[in-house]
Amino acid sequence: MTSNNQPIRSDIAFSTADRIVVRGKSLPDDILGKMNLGDFAYLQLTGKTATPQQSNMFNALLITLVEHGITPSAIAARMTYAGAPESLQAAVAAGLCGLGTVFVGTTEGAARMLYEAFEQAGDEADLPTLAVQTVAHYRERRQIIPGLGHPVHKPIDPRTPRLFALAQENGMAGRYVQLIQLIQQEAERASGKQLPINATGALGAICCEFGFPWKIVRGFGVMARAIGLVGHLLEESESPMSYQLWHEIEARASAHLREQE
Amino acid sequence: MTSNNQPIRSDIAFSTADRIVVRGKSLPDDILGKMNLGDFAYLQLTGKTATPQQSNMFNALLITLVEHGITPSAIAARMTYAGAPESLQAAVAAGLCGLGTVFVGTTEGAARMLYEAFEQAGDEADLPTLAVQTVAHYRERRQIIPGLGHPVHKPIDPRTPRLFALAQENGMAGRYVQLIQLIQQEAERASGKQLPINATGALGAICCEFGFPWKIVRGFGVMARAIGLVGHLLEESESPMSYQLWHEIEARASAHLREQE
Amino acid sequence: MTSNNQPIRSDIAFSTADRIVVRGKSLPDDILGKMNLGDFAYLQLTGKTATPQQSNMFNALLITLVEHGITPSAIAARMTYAGAPESLQAAVAAGLCGLGTVFVGTTEGAARMLYEAFEQAGDEADLPTLAVQTVAHYRERRQIIPGLGHPVHKPIDPRTPRLFALAQENGMAGRYVQLIQLIQQEAERASGKQLPINATGALGAICCEFGFPWKIVRGFGVMARAIGLVGHLLEESESPMSYQLWHEIEARASAHLREQE
Amino acid sequence: MTSNNQPIRSDIAFSTADRIVVRGKSLPDDILGKMNLGDFAYLQLTGKTATPQQSNMFNALLITLVEHGITPSAIAARMTYAGAPESLQAAVAAGLCGLGTVFVGTTEGAARMLYEAFEQAGDEADLPTLAVQTVAHYRERRQIIPGLGHPVHKPIDPRTPRLFALAQENGMAGRYVQLIQLIQQEAERASGKQLPINATGALGAICCEFGFPWKIVRGFGVMARAIGLVGHLLEESESPMSYQLWHEIEARASAHLREQE
Repeated sequence: MTSNNQPIRSDIAFSTADRIVVRGKSLPDDILGKMNLGDFAYLQLTGKTATPQQSNMFNALLITLVEHGITPSAIAARMTYAGAPESLQAAVAAGLCGLGTVFVGTTEGAARMLYEAFEQAGDEADLPTLAVQTVAHYRERRQIIPGLGHPVHKPIDPRTPRLFALAQENGMAGRYVQLIQLIQQEAERASGKQLPINATGALGAICCEFGFPWKIVRGFGVMARAIGLVGHLLEESESPMSYQLWHEIEARASAHLREQE
Repeated sequence: MTSNNQPIRSDIAFSTADRIVVRGKSLPDDILGKMNLGDFAYLQLTGKTATPQQSNMFNALLITLVEHGITPSAIAARMTYAGAPESLQAAVAAGLCGLGTVFVGTTEGAARMLYEAFEQAGDEADLPTLAVQTVAHYRERRQIIPGLGHPVHKPIDPRTPRLFALAQENGMAGRYVQLIQLIQQEAERASGKQLPINATGALGAICCEFGFPWKIVRGFGVMARAIGLVGHLLEESESPMSYQLWHEIEARASAHLREQE
Repeated sequence: MTSNNQPIRSDIAFSTADRIVVRGKSLPDDILGKMNLGDFAYLQLTGKTATPQQSNMFNALLITLVEHGITPSAIAARMTYAGAPESLQAAVAAGLCGLGTVFVGTTEGAARMLYEAFEQAGDEADLPTLAVQTVAHYRERRQIIPGLGHPVHKPIDPRTPRLFALAQENGMAGRYVQLIQLIQQEAERASGKQLPINATGALGAICCEFGFPWKIVRGFGVMARAIGLVGHLLEESESPMSYQLWHEIEARASAHLREQE
Repeated sequence: MTSNNQPIRSDIAFSTADRIVVRGKSLPDDILGKMNLGDFAYLQLTGKTATPQQSNMFNALLITLVEHGITPSAIAARMTYAGAPESLQAAVAAGLCGLGTVFVGTTEGAARMLYEAFEQAGDEADLPTLAVQTVAHYRERRQIIPGLGHPVHKPIDPRTPRLFALAQENGMAGRYVQLIQLIQQEAERASGKQLPINATGALGAICCEFGFPWKIVRGFGVMARAIGLVGHLLEESESPMSYQLWHEIEARASAHLREQE
């Protein structure tokens, strides 16, 4: 690939001897003590100040993604901390590496599905028709509709009603939230199965309401999980489980090899 | 290492078919829409609900650590995204891996220094004496006192007065904040150099006021930087700098080898 | 996802008080001093001992992937080392995170393309026909054929003839090597462009000759690059480039923001 | 930190339209088919061609570090792969992040100990005296002597005699190998405990014989482990253990929380 000599440019932040400026605002004067962490994440990401409603919704969106108990991600982080307690950042990094298609792919998948439905149909699309077309499209390709169903939460995902209520309260229950609800109804009708909207589907629709590019939606899961993993590592540093689990797993995994000896 | 058959236990969170519980609170009912992201980070980490004052201070602490412009960390994340845009989590992880002793070590170093000063002296220690002893201890070992001085911000770090003002407003300007200020004065007296308290020193003292173990202090920089890196990656996805920088750097670094041809 | 209570099992290695066994062989007695690193990688991966021909080819395959100069991967590793020199493993990890679709995807892509060509056609397929069908398939979907072309190496990739010669010498120039050569010819005919087989195409075909599942082919690039990055980090520890590059990039990226001040 | 405008320079490799050159050698003409992977790692790292004896020893050194069964590192990699099978490089990276002080620190620790013993004493030092001084130094500081003892392998580490025999055969059983053996004898005498030289101690001494800077010694464990982790991930892709382990661990860790419900 040839270099095209574009200017190298970032608009996010800079420092001078007496100033720290983020998205045009002074960190000490305009930000610290004037907004919460979720608000600042929104400002740093978008360059815009969140309205009170956007703040409520964005904080709730991120909070939903922070903690999920002992996940493969938390196990990987704890196992890494066991070998490198002096590199807590590497333990968090290891825990984040596994946030790929299997566990976090559906939030961006749902956002992408909703955006693409409107792109193909145009802005005055009839939502029920879009829902039918979308479900048919996924069923034809024998693909799972992202954002529906859940292996644990039944008959509904308890986070979904709350997220949609918050969207309503904050004026963000727009066409994307409406569409995913119609998609859910159509998917249940077409399949005969119960397919509640899970939290990733609700969050995906809310990300569309915010206008976030679907490719960055995974970033919300990543930043939120980074927060959660630090809590797991604090707990691991005080009451470790990794050493014992390691020895148990190793013994089980090699038992058949030892028996052959 | 032998396994000691302790129970495997985490107190942070669990899910059932109809509940998601974090530190004993229901995520949909007690948390979403009821607290901000910084508050939830505090709850998940400590198991306790932040008071309004702790909330103000903790949010400010984390915000301070989110964004630092085009850092080596941001460059690493952007370069990683260039090769694996489908793995945004790996790009954030790569950016976090370098948050080690050189750039984030002083926050935990300052916290450790303050905790150890009191551990060695006892609770009714005379603060000015502790400051003199601490400074002498570092000077004897020819070690830099963590939390003082800054390569860019002069004559002071503009974040420090604001952080200490917030600590004062929120009833958290206690013995650790006092001690680091006395350490700063003594260090300047003993060295004859200007050594303002930088943001990492202020944050280290504030972490001690919160009672966070010094070993977890790096985690705040890590979780905050994870937020900031997502913003950098969104920008990189829209106006990349990595490809061009790569070609420039590669050409410069190998120019002398090509000349020999 | 429900647990299905399968035994937890690994066949790779185990240790006892007086033995270390890898794939059934004693590390001190059967392996050390008896085979080279590439041979051992083959044994650990497959459970089989490489023949002399397989050894020659496999070592060459991995060597080809070790070093590519100052890549985005090497820059990310060096930038990470700058912040965390005490965590060399995290610097290597950061450098590996970016080995995704953009830079290493074509080796697995070429292997997958070749495997799928035969899967769809059957074992007695006529190679020229398969080549025509494969090229047509990619052109219909307007997709780049993995393994052909190169931004730098023209008119051919100098590694390809050598890799195919080694395949020939070692009895591994079979139907996959033949097919990719026919695909290349057909692609050039159909497009009218020069499209030499690049090293990733040659390596992809050779991986098929070995019978490696295409999903693991990326692993060869990863293990090889891990070797190469350690060399870059040794150089960085002795003559660093990261600090200077960081300051240059940061100044350029924020120049327009400072001008507005 | 100010930029000091040094040239940006790397001596490892470069490419042109028709050449790939690594440490001055043509990859297709001088390297592929002419040396094995371990030899090429040595060349890329040092810029020198390994003698046959150095080749034997270096390959054995790296092989020793490749595979250790189901380690915390392998568990972290497998757990990461479970969430992101499309990002095998991130799974390897996650597995490498935990190669820190606890599990790999003793190889670099042993190398550093041996180098520093001679630095303090000078080149004509009496080895038995150095051994006594070194052991006393560690015992005074109540520090474990790196490279001695092992939690599993008793009464000796079966890799050590083989590694020292290879060192002898290849003319590399020099003053560092001699010193660590004397240190071991003195440590046993002084403590009254059995403290065999383990593989990391043997490898640390051999790294000193090679003249590798102690700070890069961890890199050998990292590059070797990267190889081993790909084998673990291939196995995980075919017979996964991560999903089942995750569910078991999560259920155990939260059992007490569910009982309280």
